[in-house]
Amino acid sequence: METTKSAPPTRGYSATKGQLQNRLRRVEGQVRGVQAMVEEDRYCIDVLTQISAIQAALDKVALGLLDDHVDHCMSEGRVEGREDEAKAEMMAAVGRLMRRG
Amino acid sequence: METTKSAPPTRGYSATKGQLQNRLRRVEGQVRGVQAMVEEDRYCIDVLTQISAIQAALDKVALGLLDDHVDHCMSEGRVEGREDEAKAEMMAAVGRLMRRG
Amino acid sequence: METTKSAPPTRGYSATKGQLQNRLRRVEGQVRGVQAMVEEDRYCIDVLTQISAIQAALDKVALGLLDDHVDHCMSEGRVEGREDEAKAEMMAAVGRLMRRG
Amino acid sequence: METTKSAPPTRGYSATKGQLQNRLRRVEGQVRGVQAMVEEDRYCIDVLTQISAIQAALDKVALGLLDDHVDHCMSEGRVEGREDEAKAEMMAAVGRLMRRG
Repeated sequence: METTKSAPPTRGYSATKGQLQNRLRRVEGQVRGVQAMVEEDRYCIDVLTQISAIQAALDKVALGLLDDHVDHCMSEGRVEGREDEAKAEMMAAVGRLMRRG
Repeated sequence: METTKSAPPTRGYSATKGQLQNRLRRVEGQVRGVQAMVEEDRYCIDVLTQISAIQAALDKVALGLLDDHVDHCMSEGRVEGREDEAKAEMMAAVGRLMRRG
Repeated sequence: METTKSAPPTRGYSATKGQLQNRLRRVEGQVRGVQAMVEEDRYCIDVLTQISAIQAALDKVALGLLDDHVDHCMSEGRVEGREDEAKAEMMAAVGRLMRRG
Repeated sequence: METTKSAPPTRGYSATKGQLQNRLRRVEGQVRGVQAMVEEDRYCIDVLTQISAIQAALDKVALGLLDDHVDHCMSEGRVEGREDEAKAEMMAAVGRLMRRG
């Protein structure tokens, strides 16, 4: 998400959309990989390791989105006087991420 | 994973494969849904909420697999004298799940 | 941490220090409670439940501190041109909280 | 918790009680350290880093207890025909640890 600074920040995280989409496509592939492992009765622990990898990848996507929220939504909120709301929403989202859902 | 008991425990978690596959297909759909949300520049917080939901669903899949590991792999290990190894692998897997990767 | 708004925001999270200290004292008591449970050979699952409760309480303290960071440190950073640094530190802290250390 | 094997496994995790108590005393000290940091208005991010360290230490204690549960409570359950209950309790405890409370 570091490219956000140099790229023109147009609509939300559009500048890093490509990166987010790449990560999400990789996650989708990993989920299909787990489906195949389950189908082939692979050793449970190996499947669990893959699931942990997916969770870590999703955490990274979430942090990218959160970073973007701070940049755009909170800055915009600041201008429009919606700063408190944007912050409250962010804190709630962080809380959900920490507790996972 | 409760059906494991009544169903014939053949090869690993085969009895509940169907349930696991259903959950994983749903997760795959959720990941594609997040891709669409990112594509459409949806509000970051809403995307984060969806990611938390995916994480929770994956946690559930992981618990199902773990439950199965205790039933099958650890019991088998018990017979073959591989109990300690099966337990050590399980503890490591739980550790990874707790720290997500 | 909602009282932050009405109270004079002097030095960091001083306005809610009392609340944070209360929560931390409770956490300290809970940790001592777990020590006693271990000493008395209490059932492992009951001890684990207590540990989960402590983790949840620490999450709450962390979210309070984070909220405060957004209010004070990031706003001050904004003024002094340290906004990016304050945000980067916050994102790193959130990442550590999500992965627990 | 590796000493469990060589030590006489008397009542629950008594063999490694010493280790668990040491870790818990250290956690108690860390919690008091955080109280002091809050009292001195230390930089929020530094306090958050300490909290993440406490969480990681508690996770380790939890894994030690869980390991012990598998060794003792589940084995005993096995003998007494309480295996399923011991497993169900363990899975629920793991779920709480993953979601933190």
